[in-house]
Amino acid sequence: MTNDERFMKAALREAVKARDMNEVPIGCVIVHEGKIIAKAHNLREKKQLSTAHAEILAINKACKKIGSWRLEECTLYVTLEPCVMCSGAILLSRINRVVYGAKDPKGGCLDSCIQIYKVKGFNHYPIWNGGILKDSCSEIISSFFREKRRQNKVKSNF
Amino acid sequence: MTNDERFMKAALREAVKARDMNEVPIGCVIVHEGKIIAKAHNLREKKQLSTAHAEILAINKACKKIGSWRLEECTLYVTLEPCVMCSGAILLSRINRVVYGAKDPKGGCLDSCIQIYKVKGFNHYPIWNGGILKDSCSEIISSFFREKRRQNKVKSNF
Repeated sequence: MTNDERFMKAALREAVKARDMNEVPIGCVIVHEGKIIAKAHNLREKKQLSTAHAEILAINKACKKIGSWRLEECTLYVTLEPCVMCSGAILLSRINRVVYGAKDPKGGCLDSCIQIYKVKGFNHYPIWNGGILKDSCSEIISSFFREKRRQNKVKSNF
Repeated sequence: MTNDERFMKAALREAVKARDMNEVPIGCVIVHEGKIIAKAHNLREKKQLSTAHAEILAINKACKKIGSWRLEECTLYVTLEPCVMCSGAILLSRINRVVYGAKDPKGGCLDSCIQIYKVKGFNHYPIWNGGILKDSCSEIISSFFREKRRQNKVKSNF
């Protein structure tokens, strides 16, 4: 198992925590000098906060841990391709590298809807790659929504 | 004075609070049914948090006030054109309309570096317009950086 796969597994464990709270299962870890310094999972529904994506929560934790808004030597691992907001937060944090699992055709901003880090004019450009453990990262989300649809169907039968 | 100008003035008062704390002076208010429900200003340095932009802090306050991550009926006023992260947070919050003051050629994502709300594939598209009280919004930032450069020059003379 590569290091990228090992850290993505940790992000997947965060996604499982989100699923068990009935949140869309997305997880994230941030790695500094080979060690995980922050872990988080999506908490939008529980917190009723549009900004409570896994990446934002992990970045906030990492800033507190490091004691600085600059996360220059860090790599961020996330199970789903980041959205506009999270791609931006990664860039603003000066995070060096982003690794994601599954693509998100409905909002992903590293490869799917746009390649945001190819837009000119920003003052920092992270490197990125996707597809690490993509089947597991994709399956946990698909099965979450399959189950949601099943529950809604059962409800509408009564 | 139009309503847009009145609310931008309130955002400017927030920017002044940031300046007085030695933060880059950017302010934001969120309006719901004609009333300001959230006010915030940039706190990146004080909090040492890359995500502590005026818009994110205001959105978090508005979500708490409304008790929901959906801010569908709201308008967000911000003194500087939003960056990638904040443009994304506005979109994710389902905010109806964004009004900004000065353009930001070094990172603005509504008109300057990219028109992010023209990218296809997202599930919500706010309407937006810029240039409201742009001279005051621009001047507070320019004079902040002029003063910074002056201080650095004075320092380097000793």
